[in-house]
Amino acid sequence: MSDHSQVLALSGGVGGAKLALGLAKVLAPEQLTIAANTADDFCHLGFPVSPDLDTVMYTLAGLNNAELGWGLANESWQFMDALQTLGGETWFRLGDRDIATHTFRRQQREAGFSLSEITAQLCTALNIQQRLIPMTDDPVATQVLDGEQWLDFQDYFVRQQCEPNVSQARFNGIENAVIAPDLAGLLDVAAADNSLKAIIICPSNPFVSVAPILSLPGMVDKLIQARAPVIAVAPIVGGQAIKGPTAKMMQALDMPVSALGVAEHYTKRYPGLIDGFIIDHVDAAARADVEALGMRVLLADSVMTSEQHKRNLAKDCIAFARQF
Amino acid sequence: MSDHSQVLALSGGVGGAKLALGLAKVLAPEQLTIAANTADDFCHLGFPVSPDLDTVMYTLAGLNNAELGWGLANESWQFMDALQTLGGETWFRLGDRDIATHTFRRQQREAGFSLSEITAQLCTALNIQQRLIPMTDDPVATQVLDGEQWLDFQDYFVRQQCEPNVSQARFNGIENAVIAPDLAGLLDVAAADNSLKAIIICPSNPFVSVAPILSLPGMVDKLIQARAPVIAVAPIVGGQAIKGPTAKMMQALDMPVSALGVAEHYTKRYPGLIDGFIIDHVDAAARADVEALGMRVLLADSVMTSEQHKRNLAKDCIAFARQF
Repeated sequence: MSDHSQVLALSGGVGGAKLALGLAKVLAPEQLTIAANTADDFCHLGFPVSPDLDTVMYTLAGLNNAELGWGLANESWQFMDALQTLGGETWFRLGDRDIATHTFRRQQREAGFSLSEITAQLCTALNIQQRLIPMTDDPVATQVLDGEQWLDFQDYFVRQQCEPNVSQARFNGIENAVIAPDLAGLLDVAAADNSLKAIIICPSNPFVSVAPILSLPGMVDKLIQARAPVIAVAPIVGGQAIKGPTAKMMQALDMPVSALGVAEHYTKRYPGLIDGFIIDHVDAAARADVEALGMRVLLADSVMTSEQHKRNLAKDCIAFARQF
Repeated sequence: MSDHSQVLALSGGVGGAKLALGLAKVLAPEQLTIAANTADDFCHLGFPVSPDLDTVMYTLAGLNNAELGWGLANESWQFMDALQTLGGETWFRLGDRDIATHTFRRQQREAGFSLSEITAQLCTALNIQQRLIPMTDDPVATQVLDGEQWLDFQDYFVRQQCEPNVSQARFNGIENAVIAPDLAGLLDVAAADNSLKAIIICPSNPFVSVAPILSLPGMVDKLIQARAPVIAVAPIVGGQAIKGPTAKMMQALDMPVSALGVAEHYTKRYPGLIDGFIIDHVDAAARADVEALGMRVLLADSVMTSEQHKRNLAKDCIAFARQF
């Protein structure tokens, strides 16, 4: 492994997967490792579902459903249709082909494989050459606070379509969750040599996608100790979330819904972690304020509406990291 | 419930389901109870599959796949296709819609419902008005002896396409299996009153479909004590099995492959159980020999190639039972 050859991306679902795909397009496969949030994993209809991990996996395999933003392209829904006839739960939709992934995962789990191992098996079967790692092999379950009631994440996110005004998130099990061995190993090595070129925090929801990863015991320390700049990409552009409930959550948390608001959040919550912050050109006015928080800033086109945009943002991230 | 109003059919898969459907067409729904073999149930890909029970259920619902002889009509196979890509097992094919049944069953099992209760729930959802009961709520697992090796039934039946010459069957767990409560209740009542008009042993495989039902502790006694004639329909016509490995098994067991051979088997194995035996017109020559075993004989058209044939055979069974 040559010096400064590796890039580690920390990702949630859709937004993170887009940048991960961009990185996959501009790096050699062996240069890229993606660690995905697993705190939104849950058992549904008896299937162990890993939404963020699978979104990244399907995206890297070129099999993702771009229209829906989740699941597989060319998916069919016969299972759901038949289950509805039987009176089963249909609020979280599992496609016929997607079920093969969860069935495979369930079988391999019962056979004693870890989520890391199963993810590697799935990636091999889907011809994914990059390394995709769940943040942990241990169960972690996000809940969000709606008034005085804690809601399971998928209940909030899918069943209730992010309608509730949630003011807080917690990650049950996080205090006992261990960083996935391959991820810990990569970071430990990177603390001792120059193997890592950049750590990129993808433009994912800071509160429910990135926070679980950063909340794993020891994770922030490992990221700081790794000899690589930590670059975060703002998931808020022009005061709006590119996708999902980030903006709405920031409002509920009384935070300014802006790239600056995200930068402030990261700085306050994880002091000393982030070296560089990428904001969109439309947010250029926030540059000085973000820099005043102690981070370097890069202006970029961060809305990834085409494959070329994904490549460009990936290249921007890597070039930015070289400046440190 | 009026006197002599009820018919109980004991059934395996396809052949039994055909007669069950015929009975359903000529009886009022509340007159018919079908108890199905569950010894070929198995857990596959993490799904609890009940092949015979589901074949009867889908047939009664008018949803069975007549071409395949198993599963659902208008089935799709996206799940299997995707699972093959992942390197999963595909020798036992589960259709996309069929998986909804097994997922529902799995969930309800985990919620604490018995197989009887779940079957009733499924039948309600599928608008089946007849009563369908698994022979037992307890796990029983058929194995067949191939040389010196015991094979799981579906391994023999589906994966190996009945290729091995098996000489014996055993039903693991049968000694501790309890007759399903509704089935035991029906028979107990029928021992005391005249509620039961006929008990019909469908033209199913005597060795792997009927035998598990009759091997349940106490079952043969209950059938004998019920005040209703037991009518068996020969699954061998003109020296050939209508479907499946019955003929081949009889050869391996050194039994004559004929309706008479089946009659001899039932008489020897379950003395005093069977009152009437229905054989096809083409086997008319065997009549005297079967009668000599102590059973009355009815000649009928027993190959059910059309719905009319199914109705006719059902009517023949019921009319025959009236003679006792």
